[in-house]
Amino acid sequence: MRVVFLGTGGTYPSKKRNVSSVTTQIGPDVVMFDCGEGTQRQLTISPVSFMRIRAVFFTHLHADHFLGLPGLIQSMSLNGRTEALQVFGPDKTIETVRDMLNLGHFRSQFDVIAKELAPGENIDLGSFNVSVAEASHNVPSLAFAVEEEPRRGRFDIQRAKELGIPAGPKYRDLQEGRPVTVDGRTIQPQDVIGQERSGRKMVYSGDTRPCQSVTEMAAGADMLIHDGTLDSTHARLADEFGHSTAAQAAKVAKDAGVATLYLTHISPRYDDDSVLLAEARSVFPHSVVAHDLDVVEIRYRKPG
Amino acid sequence: MRVVFLGTGGTYPSKKRNVSSVTTQIGPDVVMFDCGEGTQRQLTISPVSFMRIRAVFFTHLHADHFLGLPGLIQSMSLNGRTEALQVFGPDKTIETVRDMLNLGHFRSQFDVIAKELAPGENIDLGSFNVSVAEASHNVPSLAFAVEEEPRRGRFDIQRAKELGIPAGPKYRDLQEGRPVTVDGRTIQPQDVIGQERSGRKMVYSGDTRPCQSVTEMAAGADMLIHDGTLDSTHARLADEFGHSTAAQAAKVAKDAGVATLYLTHISPRYDDDSVLLAEARSVFPHSVVAHDLDVVEIRYRKPG
Repeated sequence: MRVVFLGTGGTYPSKKRNVSSVTTQIGPDVVMFDCGEGTQRQLTISPVSFMRIRAVFFTHLHADHFLGLPGLIQSMSLNGRTEALQVFGPDKTIETVRDMLNLGHFRSQFDVIAKELAPGENIDLGSFNVSVAEASHNVPSLAFAVEEEPRRGRFDIQRAKELGIPAGPKYRDLQEGRPVTVDGRTIQPQDVIGQERSGRKMVYSGDTRPCQSVTEMAAGADMLIHDGTLDSTHARLADEFGHSTAAQAAKVAKDAGVATLYLTHISPRYDDDSVLLAEARSVFPHSVVAHDLDVVEIRYRKPG
Repeated sequence: MRVVFLGTGGTYPSKKRNVSSVTTQIGPDVVMFDCGEGTQRQLTISPVSFMRIRAVFFTHLHADHFLGLPGLIQSMSLNGRTEALQVFGPDKTIETVRDMLNLGHFRSQFDVIAKELAPGENIDLGSFNVSVAEASHNVPSLAFAVEEEPRRGRFDIQRAKELGIPAGPKYRDLQEGRPVTVDGRTIQPQDVIGQERSGRKMVYSGDTRPCQSVTEMAAGADMLIHDGTLDSTHARLADEFGHSTAAQAAKVAKDAGVATLYLTHISPRYDDDSVLLAEARSVFPHSVVAHDLDVVEIRYRKPG
């Protein structure tokens, strides 16, 4: 599972940070979360192919999270895309997508299918699942979790040999969960196959105050990407505009027991973001401030 | 008169070029021509202050020329702008601007006044004038000329002293075109004031095939910024999609007798644009291929 940060800045772009967008890739499939203005330009300087984007999820309908969609669709269309693109988001997403596609002289050569989501929904995208929770912003706002299906445990070939199981169809039967018989002995799958391994899990909060629903969704995630717009000296401002401080994001990460926290939606006021990093790490040591074009591979955790 | 190229790429952005936008500044006033997606990010890395933009002119309503407007307006609004912004363009501009401002959850804190223009119109912006010509694209499309008012000739102080004119109110009378009397002699303004000097003139073609109306508008311009999307091996494609080759743009510049040609709207296919430069210079030696963030000062021409 590869996560690419395309834009990590809050509200409006700065020299160093474009506005919000992040992609998650599992195998060949890319899913995009938020698509602020200029995202297609960021894609050109990233390792992500924009033709592989299967779906776009909007956390909310502030322009720094969605204005990149019509240009991206236009470029996909000019580059010959024919496959439909799914666009998910909160209330008003259908109307907003329709209005964006009707601007100026342009008609997409492929279908754009918009769907409005409610907290608690799950979207099955084949190799992974996206679930939806409510965030706490000043407009309707969602958080998303990307989770792989749990994987089968490892097949222990050494043990299989010791049990005298001949390589071949019986291996497959065991891997697919069926007992086999060898020399009159019944061998159960669990005799040669280890514990089921969890799939990887990434959670993206969008713009949000710290809140219980995002903390619950993030439980045990490998990566939590959380609003960390401001430092604690601006806690009141953060609350007023529906954002989190770095320390609040770190507290969510700690309470949820995630492996690593990435702060995003960094205010353009921080030319130097070390104050955010220090503040987050004082609460939760496995904190990172995300930067534009960072590429992070989420690996399977060792069982145990 | 300072011209800043914010985006010089055609159709969609590439690593090196963002989509179309250019600004012209005279004194403190900035006017923007086209505003493709990501223009506000380009502004952050340019010397242009986005708060000084008085008006935006759209050549036509293809997304790579206008999608940057709503984000720019939002950032101006968040930064406290209260002064109205004028937006000019061809038919459908009023509807397109209205629709862009109604996307998602956002209300501008200042007025955005859209006006549709026809070829032949002139817009008086105080320190300069913008005139409008028809371009030849595959949707309704305009070209614009920015012209300063002609300036008075220089006051020749040495000559005034020789004529015995005392420094003071009589100097002002002469500068404002009134004759004065010195020791019974009548002195005419033209005795001490040189020829009227032309104001500077910049012409921006937008997306266009070579055409007579743009050639006429560009007559004697200091700078012509012209569509030079493709090289001559793709002349047929250029014509089909309503663009010019570098050689065609150079022919327009030559016929119009401009001082310098800047090619813009360069196709993303040119990682190396030297083929366009060579082709243009073979027709018109004072040709340049514009690059993002180029800053060009247009100086007054020496009278002669």
